[in-house]
Amino acid sequence: MPVYTCTTPQSTLSVETKAELAAEITRVHSMINHVPGTYINVVFHEPAPENVFTDGKPARPLLINGWVRTGHPAAQSSQLVAEIASAATRITGIPARMVLVVIQNSPAHLAIEGGRVLPEPGEEEAWLAEQEGTESDES
Amino acid sequence: MPVYTCTTPQSTLSVETKAELAAEITRVHSMINHVPGTYINVVFHEPAPENVFTDGKPARPLLINGWVRTGHPAAQSSQLVAEIASAATRITGIPARMVLVVIQNSPAHLAIEGGRVLPEPGEEEAWLAEQEGTESDES
Amino acid sequence: MPVYTCTTPQSTLSVETKAELAAEITRVHSMINHVPGTYINVVFHEPAPENVFTDGKPARPLLINGWVRTGHPAAQSSQLVAEIASAATRITGIPARMVLVVIQNSPAHLAIEGGRVLPEPGEEEAWLAEQEGTESDES
Repeated sequence: MPVYTCTTPQSTLSVETKAELAAEITRVHSMINHVPGTYINVVFHEPAPENVFTDGKPARPLLINGWVRTGHPAAQSSQLVAEIASAATRITGIPARMVLVVIQNSPAHLAIEGGRVLPEPGEEEAWLAEQEGTESDES
Repeated sequence: MPVYTCTTPQSTLSVETKAELAAEITRVHSMINHVPGTYINVVFHEPAPENVFTDGKPARPLLINGWVRTGHPAAQSSQLVAEIASAATRITGIPARMVLVVIQNSPAHLAIEGGRVLPEPGEEEAWLAEQEGTESDES
Repeated sequence: MPVYTCTTPQSTLSVETKAELAAEITRVHSMINHVPGTYINVVFHEPAPENVFTDGKPARPLLINGWVRTGHPAAQSSQLVAEIASAATRITGIPARMVLVVIQNSPAHLAIEGGRVLPEPGEEEAWLAEQEGTESDES
């Protein structure tokens, strides 16, 4: 369901570091927002170094943008953004002052995955159970 | 007015498939949201395969993110997201379980195209007529 | 705090033009939204020309997407989007009819920078002062 896009200039992060950060974002999101890892996507966007600016000058920030469904409890969302920001610095070594994490959202009914409208936050279990039923029918 | 960004690893989709999907998204959006095709943008973002993860492992999902103006009727938005998800699987052959379509929105007054603030949903005709008037004046 | 993503096909803009546009977006945003330039990020996303479509055909629009914190006064946001659109055409020479500027937002409490939750609009000064205090303590 969620999509995290991590933007940083080419060659800032190694293949290993990207894999480790993707795994940790997946673990944290899964734990806090109650979504199986198989529904969590992480994409790295690596523009050429001359295409990333802070303060109007070429820079090397790490910008993480996550999309989630609207309606998660506020405390849960605050914990999510805090743990992702913390993981980003811990795993990449990029100082916190150069790391920006932003969570955006839109209503679950404006998103489709597996051919089905996403569940509202809190209704994941029924949605997932129904999915498994569908997959069994197919086999 | 809208922008659709389709993210999938490099070499997942052929040039022809991308063109066909862009044309179909444009047709569907134009029909449902009453916007001329000339105002509909589709961008493909193709990261290196090692930059796209699902469940913390390299994967090949098709992630489609659309931006539209806030305020379209709910039934219209539901139809839009359903038809785009359906077209994505039909045209690309990527199974529905690997296709995620998300629609985000912000108020029309926070967007400008052709030098003019976008119209609220439902007010497109007057806005477009005014635009044509302006272009005639210029010629 | 904000992130602006400018999308246009490869080779549409020179290195110099991109730097100039990044600097001007930074200046305009800093002035209108009262944020120091050191907190303003601009990223250029340059897909291959066959990956950008308008009206279902390959095209060369300039699509600017900005993320800001929710809650800025409406007049301020209107001025922001207008000045960015105007700067984009003035600096790049791309005609206004091919330039789309969209501002998206989410609540400040869903974003973290420098390890701290972002301030609500209007509360930047106290937040920045606290940050400087922290940095002094570190040295």
